[in-house]
Amino acid sequence: MKAVGVVVEYNPFHNGHAYHLEQAKKVAQADLVIAVMSGSFLQRGEPAMIDKWTRTKMALAGGVDIVIELPYVYSTAPAADFAKGAIALLTAVGCESFAFGSEDGAIQPFLDTFELIHGHQEEYNALIKESLTTGASYPKSLHYAYKQLSQKFPATYIDLSQPNNILGFHYIEAAKTLDSDIKPMTIPRIAAGYHDALQEGASIASATGIRQALATSCKLQQVQDVLPKISFDYLANWYRQYGKFASWETFWPFLQFTLIRHTPSELNHYAEVTEGIENALIKAAKTSHSFSSFMEKIKSKRYTWTRLQRMLTHIYTGFSKEQLHNSVTPSYIRLLGMSMKGQAYLGKYKKDISLPLISRVAATKDAMLTIDIHAAEIYNLSIETGNMEQSLPKDYQTPPIRF
Amino acid sequence: MKAVGVVVEYNPFHNGHAYHLEQAKKVAQADLVIAVMSGSFLQRGEPAMIDKWTRTKMALAGGVDIVIELPYVYSTAPAADFAKGAIALLTAVGCESFAFGSEDGAIQPFLDTFELIHGHQEEYNALIKESLTTGASYPKSLHYAYKQLSQKFPATYIDLSQPNNILGFHYIEAAKTLDSDIKPMTIPRIAAGYHDALQEGASIASATGIRQALATSCKLQQVQDVLPKISFDYLANWYRQYGKFASWETFWPFLQFTLIRHTPSELNHYAEVTEGIENALIKAAKTSHSFSSFMEKIKSKRYTWTRLQRMLTHIYTGFSKEQLHNSVTPSYIRLLGMSMKGQAYLGKYKKDISLPLISRVAATKDAMLTIDIHAAEIYNLSIETGNMEQSLPKDYQTPPIRF
Repeated sequence: MKAVGVVVEYNPFHNGHAYHLEQAKKVAQADLVIAVMSGSFLQRGEPAMIDKWTRTKMALAGGVDIVIELPYVYSTAPAADFAKGAIALLTAVGCESFAFGSEDGAIQPFLDTFELIHGHQEEYNALIKESLTTGASYPKSLHYAYKQLSQKFPATYIDLSQPNNILGFHYIEAAKTLDSDIKPMTIPRIAAGYHDALQEGASIASATGIRQALATSCKLQQVQDVLPKISFDYLANWYRQYGKFASWETFWPFLQFTLIRHTPSELNHYAEVTEGIENALIKAAKTSHSFSSFMEKIKSKRYTWTRLQRMLTHIYTGFSKEQLHNSVTPSYIRLLGMSMKGQAYLGKYKKDISLPLISRVAATKDAMLTIDIHAAEIYNLSIETGNMEQSLPKDYQTPPIRF
Repeated sequence: MKAVGVVVEYNPFHNGHAYHLEQAKKVAQADLVIAVMSGSFLQRGEPAMIDKWTRTKMALAGGVDIVIELPYVYSTAPAADFAKGAIALLTAVGCESFAFGSEDGAIQPFLDTFELIHGHQEEYNALIKESLTTGASYPKSLHYAYKQLSQKFPATYIDLSQPNNILGFHYIEAAKTLDSDIKPMTIPRIAAGYHDALQEGASIASATGIRQALATSCKLQQVQDVLPKISFDYLANWYRQYGKFASWETFWPFLQFTLIRHTPSELNHYAEVTEGIENALIKAAKTSHSFSSFMEKIKSKRYTWTRLQRMLTHIYTGFSKEQLHNSVTPSYIRLLGMSMKGQAYLGKYKKDISLPLISRVAATKDAMLTIDIHAAEIYNLSIETGNMEQSLPKDYQTPPIRF
């Protein structure tokens, strides 16, 4: 049985994802798809709009055979570490290949780009430094160094300003760094850009576009055309039960309370909080009645929006610099769900899987898994507040979903 | 101008308080009354039902001439430290005497009780120890030791099982320990016991009874008879504006979030959190939808209700063991409000006041005052949440109230 891996957030699972799964199986000539999916908090530094269990059900209904969780430590990390965690897990679970969506759509330019940068690492770093000293921002300096280098060694490289190309680059980098045999493949993204808003009459939309449509109007029908039916039903059912989707806006009262409750030096103890920003965070929290007005006050050229959100995620969940420092490589594979085929695969290859496969958490001493459970508890509480009748499934008690 | 001091919480200011003020002025033959009033959080370890500024207005309307704030460090402390902070401040602000309400009602038995215990401290401690080794609780052992000692040296002593007698005892102890010249006086409490429920047709009720009546029904008219009219109007106006009174029940979502967000070792960092209870606090928080159901789960013979609530107060406000340790004696007198007479008094005796008198906080470096401001910010946020139009006065910007 040949497995292809995908790295996903499914926030929420939409037609574009379904298309990607279909293509991934085709190009990899795979019998099944294994998805490594982020848990409660995501790479852009925000809570997933619906919980990991509902997103697992969407994934299984949409064609994934095995869903494993990307631990919090990686799911909220900058692209390079995010990719490292994901590729390590897909390798450990026995995928022969992995397929990512990209703006570029062909794999050779990704491999060439990787060779260009890693083959001239010192020169690349020197160019970045050169640009930084002129006062340019870090992203701008990266762009400058990349441009210089690719002009010096002409070939077909990827456009590294495209979000999915960037992630793809890091997947390949991760596979090489981890010395993994897993084979990279890419599938061109269709119809919708990463951040594009919803288009009327279209059947494909970006997850960002879908979330924006729901956040501003909460008119579920608006997104009906761009989600598979089952996925849409799960979304509608969630909204009926909880009356909201998770977002920084809905979590704002708790985030505000947490920011104001801490002293600056306590805030500095959390992961990714850089010296000097703590006072600004507290000051802005004191005068903001919403997350968006808060962000307006703290955004600056120095930090990207995503970087700020990741900082806030770690403050929110209480994830410290020390915990980040101690989390080096994935220490387990947490199974969130599987199809019949997925079950057969795991039965057959169990002994070849190089990390402990965890289906029921109950009591764990694994530090990384404890962080996942903790993040899920914080997430659930933030959803359940003011909604006493509806409890979310307790993360540590929930067995993998069978589909 | 002769000033008598009172130690108050005014939660809320009721007819019993008005009576006490009248009596205090009479027995002390004083020209004016100075009240040292707890700020945002109170001695039983809970938030004041309405903020310090509204309670200051009630106090001034009810006959107090100067209201100064009892800092958080003392207002949330066990009786002995609470008393020490209060008496130190009343002494510093120049009161010749202070008058406390008590069940006993006569001062001599208080003085005799103090002499009995402090004159036989070693014997008293040995008796407590003797009782503790039999497995009796600390309050029971105190009672035992006191009973033994008072039988050995017969005289008229106070009943130390009565809450106001206990506080009175500590006021006298504080005055002696601080070597203060301030003269203690006591006024018998009338009509209502400390914790008594509201009685129909009565004009005097305990603050506890009033709060209970409001918490269970929120029918303001029920308490109309037991509050001075202005005090009642402030209460009704507050409820109209904020739709709730502060209590652990209304603050529960934030408390629950805070408990669950922290690790056990982080919780142990806060004042009064004793080793071993952290896990129980987190576990109970995870399964409780209200403060009362939470308390049901954590109450035990080992800790009094008040002790548990104080622990939770410190966790809520983020007040650490280290901060408690560093707070030794009051370092300032914070003026919350004054009548014309109060203003005249302060003008006349300003130079005799032995601590800096603070009317406007703005930027402060005083650690103890920073704690007060911080507690007020946490308090205000907890009231304002979900109520975007109504902001409470910012504590650090509010000038003393002039009446």
